[in-house]
Formats: sequence, C-alpha cells, structure tokens
Amino acid sequence: MSPTPAFDLLLFGGTGDLAMRKLIPALWQADAAGQLHVDGRILALGRKPFDDDGYRAWLTAHARPLIAGDVDDAAWRRFLCRVRYLPLDARAPADFVALAGQLPIDEGRALVAYLATAPELFAPICENLAAVGLNHEHARVVLEKPLGRDLASANAINDAVLAHFAERQVYRIDHYLGKESVQNLMAIRFGNVLFEPLWRREWVEHVEITIAEDLGVEGRGEFYDRTGALRDMVQNHLLQLLCIVAMEPPANMGADAIRDEKLKVVSSLRRFRPRDVAARTVRGQYAAGSVRGQPVPAYRDEPDVAPDSRTETYVALIAEIDNWRWAGVPFYLRTGKRLAERVAEIVIHFRDVPHALLPSAAGCATANRLVIHLQPEENIRLHVLAKAPGDGMELQSAALELDFTQRFAARRADAYERLLLDAIRGNLALFMRRDEGVEAWRWVEPILAEWAADPTPPAPYPAGSWGPAAASRLLYQDRHAWHEECAGR
Amino acid sequence: MSPTPAFDLLLFGGTGDLAMRKLIPALWQADAAGQLHVDGRILALGRKPFDDDGYRAWLTAHARPLIAGDVDDAAWRRFLCRVRYLPLDARAPADFVALAGQLPIDEGRALVAYLATAPELFAPICENLAAVGLNHEHARVVLEKPLGRDLASANAINDAVLAHFAERQVYRIDHYLGKESVQNLMAIRFGNVLFEPLWRREWVEHVEITIAEDLGVEGRGEFYDRTGALRDMVQNHLLQLLCIVAMEPPANMGADAIRDEKLKVVSSLRRFRPRDVAARTVRGQYAAGSVRGQPVPAYRDEPDVAPDSRTETYVALIAEIDNWRWAGVPFYLRTGKRLAERVAEIVIHFRDVPHALLPSAAGCATANRLVIHLQPEENIRLHVLAKAPGDGMELQSAALELDFTQRFAARRADAYERLLLDAIRGNLALFMRRDEGVEAWRWVEPILAEWAADPTPPAPYPAGSWGPAAASRLLYQDRHAWHEECAGR
Repeated sequence: MSPTPAFDLLLFGGTGDLAMRKLIPALWQADAAGQLHVDGRILALGRKPFDDDGYRAWLTAHARPLIAGDVDDAAWRRFLCRVRYLPLDARAPADFVALAGQLPIDEGRALVAYLATAPELFAPICENLAAVGLNHEHARVVLEKPLGRDLASANAINDAVLAHFAERQVYRIDHYLGKESVQNLMAIRFGNVLFEPLWRREWVEHVEITIAEDLGVEGRGEFYDRTGALRDMVQNHLLQLLCIVAMEPPANMGADAIRDEKLKVVSSLRRFRPRDVAARTVRGQYAAGSVRGQPVPAYRDEPDVAPDSRTETYVALIAEIDNWRWAGVPFYLRTGKRLAERVAEIVIHFRDVPHALLPSAAGCATANRLVIHLQPEENIRLHVLAKAPGDGMELQSAALELDFTQRFAARRADAYERLLLDAIRGNLALFMRRDEGVEAWRWVEPILAEWAADPTPPAPYPAGSWGPAAASRLLYQDRHAWHEECAGR
Repeated sequence: MSPTPAFDLLLFGGTGDLAMRKLIPALWQADAAGQLHVDGRILALGRKPFDDDGYRAWLTAHARPLIAGDVDDAAWRRFLCRVRYLPLDARAPADFVALAGQLPIDEGRALVAYLATAPELFAPICENLAAVGLNHEHARVVLEKPLGRDLASANAINDAVLAHFAERQVYRIDHYLGKESVQNLMAIRFGNVLFEPLWRREWVEHVEITIAEDLGVEGRGEFYDRTGALRDMVQNHLLQLLCIVAMEPPANMGADAIRDEKLKVVSSLRRFRPRDVAARTVRGQYAAGSVRGQPVPAYRDEPDVAPDSRTETYVALIAEIDNWRWAGVPFYLRTGKRLAERVAEIVIHFRDVPHALLPSAAGCATANRLVIHLQPEENIRLHVLAKAPGDGMELQSAALELDFTQRFAARRADAYERLLLDAIRGNLALFMRRDEGVEAWRWVEPILAEWAADPTPPAPYPAGSWGPAAASRLLYQDRHAWHEECAGR
C-alpha cells in the first residue's frame, strides 16, 4: 500500500492505557513500515500538564517498551518528531479554541479525532470540536467501545455524536474486524469458489465462535463489574464475527455494501423470548482456581468487584439466524475470562456424510470441520478423514493446514495499526455502522433483561477451566460438543 | 490388519525382473511387518535349474539389495525359510504334476498363482494348473499387464484364463490401484461430505491426470517399441485413475460394487470418431536431450528400437465422460517417458468465482485447485486464495496441505505389497474386472486405428522437456494450461 495522505491525528486520552498499549505502538509500526505520510502529525491531548518534550519522554518510558520487536533509537526519535501534546479538558470549550489554533489551515488534510476516552466524554468532545469547526468534511471521529451499555445509552451517545458529525464521518472501532485473520475469512469466502456451495444449511451442521481469555479483569474491576461479558464481548466482537461468517456476498467491497449485508444478518437473528433465555444461554463467573499452574483469585475477590457480584465473566449461548441460508443451523457463541487458554477461533462443523461407506474411528471428531484460528496464532485447518495407512480401508482424522505466518513472510499489521490507517485513509469498511450496533443491542437486550430479573447467580466455574458445566450441557442437548471436548482437535 | 491366512504362493517368473524388483521385496516387507501367516509359503518357478538354496542365494544377491531400508540378517534368513524353488517349463504338463506334488494337501489353504511372465504363457500355465487340479475353489491367478495389445488379443487371453478359472478367481494387477494415495483419493471422496457437493460439473472446470516418467525405455526397447504409451499407460493406469476420480459412490466397498461403478465410467467415455483423433489427441516421441543435466539419446537410438520407429513415447488426450455428473468437463490425460520430472498427480481445477469481489494477482493460478500427488511424494494440496498481508484486500495464492508421510507415522505399504496381501486374502476390490478392461480397449482402439492409418510421425520432443508443444496447444484451445505451466504450482 502507498502511504496515507497528510493528516492530523488528535489523540484524546493521549496518556491513557489504550494509547500506550495499542495506539502509539500501532502508529510507530505504521511509521516504521513507511505507511505514514511525511506530513502526518499526531497531537496527543490529555489532562496531564506535559509540554511536547515531556509527553515524548512519557511515550519513551511508557509506550516504547510495549512495542513488539526492536526499536531503533534514531527511528524512534524521528517518530517522536511527529508527536506533540496539548493539555486539554474535554469539557472546556476554550481548550478547543487553543487546539484549533495548533492545527495547520489546509482544507485537504485529513483530520482524525481518536476518542480513546471514557464514553461520557464523547458528547462534549464532539460538541466542542464542532464549535471550533473541526467537524469539517475531512474530519473523522473514531469511537472506542463501549458505545453504551444498552440500546438507550448507545442511542444517546450516537445522537450526541451525530448531532455534529455525519454518519460517514464516524468510525466505530471493533478491533476484531482489524485482525488479518478476520479479513482473511472474508477473502477466503468471497475469493474462492470452493467454499460457496458448502457455506449453507445444507452442508453446515453448526458453527462455534469462541473468544476465550486466560486473563482476569486486570485492574478494570470497577468497569467490568458494571459491564459483564455479554456487553463487553458478545454484543460487539462475537456478533461481528458471526456476521462475517454468515453474511451474503456483498454487492461490492465498499463499506456500505459490506455493512448492509452484516446488518441483514444481525436483523435476522432470532430474538430471545423470555422463556428462551434460561434454555439457550449460560452465564458463569469464575471462582478461584489456577491458570498455567499459578493460583488466581475468584472474580468476587478481584479489586473493585462487589463481593456479592452477579456480573457474568462467561457467556455461552445459541444464536439462530432466520434466513434461507442458515435456518436451523445453531451458532454457538461463547466468551469468558480466566479460561484454560487464550484462543479465538471459529469452527464450521460440516454435516456427516449421508451414508458411511468406510469405517472410521469412533468419536465426535469424524465429521469435517473448518477451523479458523484468529489468535494467538493465525491459521486455517480443514479437518478431513483420510485413509489410515496399511492394507485396510479405515478412516482417520487429518488436517489440511494453512499457516499464515509461514506462508506469507511479510509483516502482518496489528489490528489497531490497520484500523488507524483505514481511518486516516477514510476507509469505513472495517468499522461498525450505527444501525448494526442498534440491531445488536436489540438482540442482546432481552437477555440482559431476563438475567437481571432472574435471582439465580451465574454458574461458578474454576479459573483455568473451560467454563461452567452448563455450557457443555447447552450443546449436548443438540447432541453437539465444544471443539476442545472433541477428540482430534 | 491381522496376518493373512495360510497360503501357498506360486511365483511364475520367479527369477525375473519383476520378482526381484517388486514381488520379493514386497513379500519381505509384509513378512517383516508380521502380515504373513506363519504357514505362508512361497514356491518360485522358473526355467533356471536352481535348487532351494541356489534360489535363496540368488534372492540374497539380486532381490535383497533392492529392498528399501535395513534388512536384518536373521530376519532375512527366516524369510528365506518360506521360499522354495522348482524348475519348471510353463508349457510342460509333467512339470505341473511335480509342482502339485510339492503342495500340501489342505483344502482350506489359499493358493495364489502369480503369473509374472510374458502374457503368451498365461494360457498354457492356466491350462496346466487346471490339469492337475490347481484351479480349485481356493486357487487364484494374478495376471500382470500387458493383458493384450488390443481388444481381440485381450479377449483371447481372458478366454484362455477363464476356460479354467472363474472370473472371481482372476486378479488383474494394475499397481496404480495399490498405491496408498489412490486409495486415499477414494477415502477422501467417500469419507468426507466436504468434497461431494463440489465433485461435479457445476463446480469442476477440468481435470488433469498426469503420469510422467523421467526414465526412458530402460532395456525394454523391444517390448516398448511394439507397445507404445497408449497401450502401456493410458489403457490401464490413466483410465483407472480417471475412474477413481469420476466414479459415483458405490453401493458398498465390496469389489463388485466398486468395479460396477468404474465400469460405468469407462462405458460413459465418449468414443473417438476418426476425425476427433487429430483434434483431441497428441502423440510424441522423445528426441535426444538431457535429463537432470545428463545427456540422453533419442528414443530411436535406444537399443532394440527401430531407427524409423513411429511408436509414441508420449500421449496427451482429452477424454470426456458423457454422464450427468461430468458432461462438458474435459479430463486431460497425459503420460510420457523422458519427461522433465517423475511425477504422478491428479489436479481438479475448480471453476472461477462467479463474480470477483476482490482483486487478485493476474495469471492462470487464481482458481481453486485440488492437487493429489501420487508420486514421488504423497500429499494433497488445496490451492485457495487468501488475503495478502498488509492493509489492502488483495488476494494471493496459498495452499492448505496434507502430507501423508508426516501425518501418519506408520509405515506405508508399497503398492505391490498391498496387492499381494489382497490377493492372498481374496480381496478383489483393487483388481480390474474383465469387463473394465474390455471397455477400456473399446475406447482406446479407435485412437490406435487412426494413428496407424495416419502417416504423420509422432511429434518429437526433447528428452527432459514436458512433451511436445502440441500438448500445450491441446489445452490452449479450451483456454486451459497444464498445471506446471501455471504460476504457483
């Protein structure tokens, strides 16, 4: 790709955790790869009273150590030349006048306001940017999740932002969409004729989408205890992955064509009636246990978590898509903290052969599966049955494998790097449109409501396990089993 | 698999080339793997005046060095204990009386007569065996190719054999059917639901089947010059592979169910009209050239080859199967001697995506292909397009790969070992039935006739090349290209 156009990136929350861990490292990587225009400038904003050099020293101390790979001193100094800092109170209009004064007057430059702040600040920041004219046609605003905690609060935030910016200026980040392997899933679906005839109810028995974390709440106990896994992961990341798996081929690869198809999927999700929730969802909360041999505390013993918290740290549920392609095919979604492994994967389970001509080893791993690993490694495995060697004709499981890291020697951009470059270039395809988020909240809300009304606490599961036993029973009622419970994973 | 039942194997042609290179090594391997019954005996027959020990010394000198892997001395001596030798003239009835006297009287024992001799001897051997009662119900006769040089001579041989043996006692060897990878092709087709919806004209654009040899005629000039590639390779090996690729799922994996389906394929092959032959076949003959950097002579300069020989050492042709599954899908078959590589492979070329949503690198390698390598290595590669890394969305070729040697640590039986064990066990599934061979000759004969009538000599090609240019033009008229001519092979 050629470098970006000239840009100004306003980094709200410039001294925060996300900026240090993700955004500055991503910008550095893009710069090191020659992807940033020579006249691309980063203006960090925050409450800390730094001057430019003070902020640069802060980056050297707090962001540089988090960059993967070697960082050349001279290149780092060149990168810091792009960076300036302005102390700013997001609720102080006068500070935005000063901010506007810092920006070059050049009508063609892209202006990207990245709001890596608490969502309460989205409305005042947008209003204050508009007041000083920084919502012009080349301006974009990038919003970090959480975008609300239900439909009403999401609408309130969107209304406040859209009072000052057009929808086509709003870039709602879901960093799962920036992952190479997720885009690859789209490439593989729509770039190969092979999968199209198989990608439908006639051949697919069920689909599993898992985002498992081995970490706990990691100092975010106060936020997490208000939020829970359904809001934190299912409403956004898991549903976005489901959309990419299930969408129809779009009319073209333009942002709205893709988002139209994703919206159709979310709109086709069968709504949970109150009585469905107990039968088709499982919520869990981790108890004390051990992860990789280290003892870890229970969720309720984490800092800033209520000792009687009923917040779920684990969700498993059965989603169904009521359309011609997917009717009757269960999509099993699950996510949790303090699980046995850090893994994100999509498993397409194909149906059994209509008639078994050949004998095969018993067990649940005999049907074909396409496994797309998103993290930690990125690869695709197609599990098939092949002939076991020898003079019989017995089948044995084997996998055709494509390892992206091995196949493509080129550097693979991190999700944030990709999304930042897309925002600077003005490519909306990998960002969520408002209506997608709205429909996702509509689907999630009945579950939230039913859980809130149900006095049963979340099922406890030991930290370091694969979640509560009820999650296994959830699939077992359909005579299915989670991928790791099958032989031959 | 459990060991064979007790058996007597009569090895006609016991001092010959095939016995030394293939049959004795295969029997040794089966023995070393514990596959032979403790009371399995090998009685070699030939014109040389050996006694048992003389023959065993001959095996130690001529067969043992050709065995792959280490041969333990003690194990080799134990193997030789199974082996005896009887001088025999295949045309001398008295010698068969002596032969019968050597065999134990035990009605349950399997008797396998392996005819590794010139086909002219098949009739007298069968007649003489029958005369001494060695065509009893536990007797089988294994026939090596060539089974005739046209329909009439094949019928004559079959009539002579079937005058004394029932069809279910006749094991016609096509050693390609004994290859693990060929059986794996069947296992993969009928053991996986994945490939079934794709395995038809709607999704397959064309199929290539190649058996390329880098060797020349290797001392068989006299035989080869009478035979040619069409009779030597196409009528049997290539058509058998085509049948395995194209057959419908059989009713079961029994020998006759499989052979019924293969027969249907051969019967559905469109017959060549005289005017089709020039347009849809190419014959070639190698000129001097070099293979792996070594200069090699022209075919006409090989020993025992006529200096004006018009025998083809290369064939490429377009086969078409007139049935519902394959109508309109060309099957490109080719084989030749002194080609660039020793390779046997089947390539299923799938159609292009109906509408290209994503840009891809130009070239002929963009559509999906399933490549089944039969030799020298055995693997399966599914060529797909994946996203090239980086912040664009361009497609790049990549392969999902299954390497059988890596996946299955177990020893892989050689084709002859597998087929010998099947013959001893009485499993006909991997042997050709008479009607299959008859139909194959019916299909081949119009080509033979047209070539015989056409004064044009075969197109010369340099030894070490991929054959005559006309073979490329043959596919080019359909806007296709051989696999190795495509990028990204």
